[in-house]
Amino acid sequence: MIETKDITRPTAALVEGLKHAGAAAASSTLSRMGIRNAHIVGPIARTPGKAIAGPALTLQFMPKREDLYGADEYADPEKQLHRHVLYHTQPGDIVVVDARGDMSSGVFGEMMLTYFQGKGGIGLVIDGCLRDFPNARTLDLGLWINGLTPNFHTQTNIMPFAVNEPVACGGVLVMPGDIIVADDDGAVVVPLALAAEVIAQSSQHHEWEAFSKERLMQGGDLKRYYPLSDAARPEYEAWVKAQAAKTS
Amino acid sequence: MIETKDITRPTAALVEGLKHAGAAAASSTLSRMGIRNAHIVGPIARTPGKAIAGPALTLQFMPKREDLYGADEYADPEKQLHRHVLYHTQPGDIVVVDARGDMSSGVFGEMMLTYFQGKGGIGLVIDGCLRDFPNARTLDLGLWINGLTPNFHTQTNIMPFAVNEPVACGGVLVMPGDIIVADDDGAVVVPLALAAEVIAQSSQHHEWEAFSKERLMQGGDLKRYYPLSDAARPEYEAWVKAQAAKTS
Amino acid sequence: MIETKDITRPTAALVEGLKHAGAAAASSTLSRMGIRNAHIVGPIARTPGKAIAGPALTLQFMPKREDLYGADEYADPEKQLHRHVLYHTQPGDIVVVDARGDMSSGVFGEMMLTYFQGKGGIGLVIDGCLRDFPNARTLDLGLWINGLTPNFHTQTNIMPFAVNEPVACGGVLVMPGDIIVADDDGAVVVPLALAAEVIAQSSQHHEWEAFSKERLMQGGDLKRYYPLSDAARPEYEAWVKAQAAKTS
Amino acid sequence: MIETKDITRPTAALVEGLKHAGAAAASSTLSRMGIRNAHIVGPIARTPGKAIAGPALTLQFMPKREDLYGADEYADPEKQLHRHVLYHTQPGDIVVVDARGDMSSGVFGEMMLTYFQGKGGIGLVIDGCLRDFPNARTLDLGLWINGLTPNFHTQTNIMPFAVNEPVACGGVLVMPGDIIVADDDGAVVVPLALAAEVIAQSSQHHEWEAFSKERLMQGGDLKRYYPLSDAARPEYEAWVKAQAAKTS
Amino acid sequence: MIETKDITRPTAALVEGLKHAGAAAASSTLSRMGIRNAHIVGPIARTPGKAIAGPALTLQFMPKREDLYGADEYADPEKQLHRHVLYHTQPGDIVVVDARGDMSSGVFGEMMLTYFQGKGGIGLVIDGCLRDFPNARTLDLGLWINGLTPNFHTQTNIMPFAVNEPVACGGVLVMPGDIIVADDDGAVVVPLALAAEVIAQSSQHHEWEAFSKERLMQGGDLKRYYPLSDAARPEYEAWVKAQAAKTS
Amino acid sequence: MIETKDITRPTAALVEGLKHAGAAAASSTLSRMGIRNAHIVGPIARTPGKAIAGPALTLQFMPKREDLYGADEYADPEKQLHRHVLYHTQPGDIVVVDARGDMSSGVFGEMMLTYFQGKGGIGLVIDGCLRDFPNARTLDLGLWINGLTPNFHTQTNIMPFAVNEPVACGGVLVMPGDIIVADDDGAVVVPLALAAEVIAQSSQHHEWEAFSKERLMQGGDLKRYYPLSDAARPEYEAWVKAQAAKTS
Repeated sequence: MIETKDITRPTAALVEGLKHAGAAAASSTLSRMGIRNAHIVGPIARTPGKAIAGPALTLQFMPKREDLYGADEYADPEKQLHRHVLYHTQPGDIVVVDARGDMSSGVFGEMMLTYFQGKGGIGLVIDGCLRDFPNARTLDLGLWINGLTPNFHTQTNIMPFAVNEPVACGGVLVMPGDIIVADDDGAVVVPLALAAEVIAQSSQHHEWEAFSKERLMQGGDLKRYYPLSDAARPEYEAWVKAQAAKTS
Repeated sequence: MIETKDITRPTAALVEGLKHAGAAAASSTLSRMGIRNAHIVGPIARTPGKAIAGPALTLQFMPKREDLYGADEYADPEKQLHRHVLYHTQPGDIVVVDARGDMSSGVFGEMMLTYFQGKGGIGLVIDGCLRDFPNARTLDLGLWINGLTPNFHTQTNIMPFAVNEPVACGGVLVMPGDIIVADDDGAVVVPLALAAEVIAQSSQHHEWEAFSKERLMQGGDLKRYYPLSDAARPEYEAWVKAQAAKTS
Repeated sequence: MIETKDITRPTAALVEGLKHAGAAAASSTLSRMGIRNAHIVGPIARTPGKAIAGPALTLQFMPKREDLYGADEYADPEKQLHRHVLYHTQPGDIVVVDARGDMSSGVFGEMMLTYFQGKGGIGLVIDGCLRDFPNARTLDLGLWINGLTPNFHTQTNIMPFAVNEPVACGGVLVMPGDIIVADDDGAVVVPLALAAEVIAQSSQHHEWEAFSKERLMQGGDLKRYYPLSDAARPEYEAWVKAQAAKTS
Repeated sequence: MIETKDITRPTAALVEGLKHAGAAAASSTLSRMGIRNAHIVGPIARTPGKAIAGPALTLQFMPKREDLYGADEYADPEKQLHRHVLYHTQPGDIVVVDARGDMSSGVFGEMMLTYFQGKGGIGLVIDGCLRDFPNARTLDLGLWINGLTPNFHTQTNIMPFAVNEPVACGGVLVMPGDIIVADDDGAVVVPLALAAEVIAQSSQHHEWEAFSKERLMQGGDLKRYYPLSDAARPEYEAWVKAQAAKTS
Repeated sequence: MIETKDITRPTAALVEGLKHAGAAAASSTLSRMGIRNAHIVGPIARTPGKAIAGPALTLQFMPKREDLYGADEYADPEKQLHRHVLYHTQPGDIVVVDARGDMSSGVFGEMMLTYFQGKGGIGLVIDGCLRDFPNARTLDLGLWINGLTPNFHTQTNIMPFAVNEPVACGGVLVMPGDIIVADDDGAVVVPLALAAEVIAQSSQHHEWEAFSKERLMQGGDLKRYYPLSDAARPEYEAWVKAQAAKTS
Repeated sequence: MIETKDITRPTAALVEGLKHAGAAAASSTLSRMGIRNAHIVGPIARTPGKAIAGPALTLQFMPKREDLYGADEYADPEKQLHRHVLYHTQPGDIVVVDARGDMSSGVFGEMMLTYFQGKGGIGLVIDGCLRDFPNARTLDLGLWINGLTPNFHTQTNIMPFAVNEPVACGGVLVMPGDIIVADDDGAVVVPLALAAEVIAQSSQHHEWEAFSKERLMQGGDLKRYYPLSDAARPEYEAWVKAQAAKTS
């Protein structure tokens, strides 16, 4: 019987903090911390407006080799590792798949995705395709994928090979248990050990942005308002007070 | 005067059967029958939610060669083969175009597409681009295309070359008269001679899926419900009876 | 202090004339005038239904070279040329960016785009990505872009290098002050000196199109109605009179 | 039994004239005659120094479809069309193959190439690969190919589909019987009907080139010697006389 | 201290048998045994004429992540896994590297390659680049690589990540200890368990090839001589006797 | 009349120092100095064994726009900027061309290259193609190019646009007057201001390499000899003395 490793899950505080920060702030903060690129390039938001964060369960595909893989999708399904990654699903989990950028194999279909959602899974990031979307479109999962195909997961060139091992997805290394932050900008990988620092740094410089945005929309001077200049700080402070007065 | 071949059209039963099956079932059934890849990779659904099936009229583009092609789009339009493929349109037809993946020539514009719809055409699969979409967007055609461009069909590198001859579209061979099945997953080619068998095989294993999907959404065990295990069969049969009772 | 050139803006008549023509007519007219390809291939309409025209402010990125560029996005922002291109914004302007097709650097985010809109800017054409879209999505700008990323503009391989100099965007040369016409088909560059002629030529052959479209939708003969044949001209003229009678 | 068309062969004068001109002169002359690109982009000279010209026998591959093609290379070889194109070989012929840019199928191996050479074939231009090169390397054929592979011709994604029909090779349309001119620069297609004119035009402006080259190598002024200026013509004429004196 | 696994080496008979067969025969035999593609597509023969076979030591690169990798190539070299794969070298070994197709990082330079040769290593297959070739060119190793670069192995986007684990190289899965067969056609992976059968099957149908090749070179009929027809068998047998007489 | 800028040339000492270092040492030293990638990726060594260094004259191509460029190569050649970059040639110069990776336009042919060599030019680095190689192959220039084509420089999609301005070549920014170091590994750009420091740093750690290489070739331990360990230093020093004794 196949046994695959589970992951260690982060605290709810880390997940919530990163979700609040969003992908853009997480990526730019990681960049300042020395992680040059945390963006998974390739998979794009298929479910516009969705914004999620959660730990990564990982699934790795490899080029298909017929001596190591049987062809029929229904014969002994328990040997198929794309099922096993889903067996680990806990509420809030995100599945990250290295499908090698393949555009003619669909990693999961309606039934598998339904099971994933039933177990509390919240989203998938796939360097490849999903299938069976006409049936799966009513599900409530966040999807960052390269595309769709009617072909099933091992129909052409790839086969599932490993679960919860390090994977390369969209040109980025993802370790099992790393935290994914994904929204319309795309999906970002936050190394688990850096998550707290990312939250701390990305929450610093936001207080004046609402003010600046209002002024810029009115035709205000970029040099004065973004970043907030010393010259504009009294104006900002007055605005803060006025806002407070309004809402009190 | 240019004469091009027409195609032999399939029975309505074949078309309806494949439309009912959908692209994903057609592709996976063909795979089990030995057709490794029936998915036209490249053209994606531009009209989400549309799901159609019908026989393929084919149009082939070739690299433009100026000694064989004049440049002006309005001079003697009857020499232009992209018109001729549409002349064969009968209700329910689908036009499949090998536009060589070209991203800077738009195969058809509003007027041509309007004519196609007026004759009963239902959709197009193009390994290339359409043009004039701001005007054409109100038409009611299913579109699987690589993209859009404002350029007309022979503006840069390609010229229409043959009608209702075998074409390669998105890495797949399409014979004139083959049946296209297309939905959000993409477009699939069903060889005419295999259509009946595809319908027969793809209609077999679906009865328990609604039940299984319901259980999986409730957090049910994948091993028990997908594929349906022997252990769960009594539960399934009880569910069938209960469903029948509800609807009677 | 950095000083960058401004552009000479076209007359309102030229801008309006080209906007009325649309991208498809502008491109096919330019083709007949000898400009083989005016379509910026790559950036696609992110804001479906938007149709704009206006003069091009240009921004050029180059491969990043660390001896010529410091890494921190907030240190002395006035050195960053992507700010300077926006300083030139006048109502109706469009920013065209050669971002070298880079998919992992986001040229502008919410604050910069807000400033641009506040100054009257109407759209952007970027051979690359935007970032911070979850915050920027409520803005009212037309966007033709290759994609989105959470990464900021110099995070990986490119750096802003020149403002209002000639740029290559999507395989097309754009001179500062050229007129961009963009809609769902994509973005087209109209050389300033050719704009009046494009308007003149593209406004000629449209009178009978509404009539022809109506007939084609009814199943009319393509040879008779598109282009309008001499045989159908009397029918067309009768239709024109009938239309006039209806609306008078 | 399979019957495929033969081609009409050009006169020896046309072939010799084009061979003498060479690929660069043929291509630039065709460009001035309105054929924008005659260069087959992709296949590169595998046999440096070889320079040949001859009529094109054409072989077209299509994406493999298992219902139309059996897998075993030795079962009924007479059904395999890559054999049939070689059956037409006459001395001086060149085989042009549209192998769809495929890098994992080898169109011909040692035995087939040996047969081709035995019949007088002089070269191949393949938008794809050859196989079995360790055995074939001693043959005396000119080869313009994308690469090599150990895989045989139908091992992965393509199958031979048509012989002596129009093909697209390296982005260029080749009609059966067109004349190929190939050397280290690559392979050029000369449409048969234009061959005489290409020879006439490409033989005009060469007389002074040997003189100019000598002067340029000595550090002469480009404006004076290339193209030959009126000012340098007396010097050139003196050089011609001196040359004549030397060789008489 | 880092410890990495060694591989189990095949018998000399298997290695010799496969070397004798060559890459083309190994690949086509594997194809008939059900392994669709055994060719590592991408790396090409840099050392023409070299033909080798041997067991695969494997090295896997992953996208660089700065929190998991330090930048300086000389600081604690023992942490660098590209050294560790070479520590396992025994005479006859071949190193296979998944360098992710990266064209701007050179996996090994002169010193590392010298060490590998000193230990008896015979060749490398790299889905990426070597560096320092002006110094390394006098070494006597077979090289199948994508290209060369002056950059060192972790200079841009990748870092060594695992030794003697399964890798994907040029679109093919390579298990540590599989046997590589490489010559001018490219490099082929023979799964260890299938090696004996590959040798058995690929040695069958060769006896008549020398005869057939001779006849084909003389202009013989392809149908008669390749594959050898029953009609030509007496002629072949006479030839065999004549050959034997000559050499006795 | 067209006037283009010349460059400032480096001292002979800088050029010689970098040539002595070679491309690999220059690139790795620059990396340690903070220049992540100095390698021009794309152009490969066409003249194996050539190793040169010299200042960069730069030529930039842009996408062709017919309103800005006439088509005939011989009409008023003095308007063609690819001539002007060569007018600046001084002995030891290297021409760097951003030809946009174009594979169907040949930047220079035999006559232009002859002029360049006649003026003392030593090599070219082109992100694109040369033409007319059968005639040019006897020249003595170092060539780093993407490929060859028979087409002339403006035949298809590009036109020369600027001379001795900053260019992007193979993904790297090259400033006019930067020093190019090129050999079989490829071409590297050394920013002029960093050249002295590159020479200083790259000449440090080489003394023991000849010794280490000898030991490694004899099967020596990598940990002991590369980099040279403290334990092996006495052995190295003895070797140095023995070498000195031999050569005295």
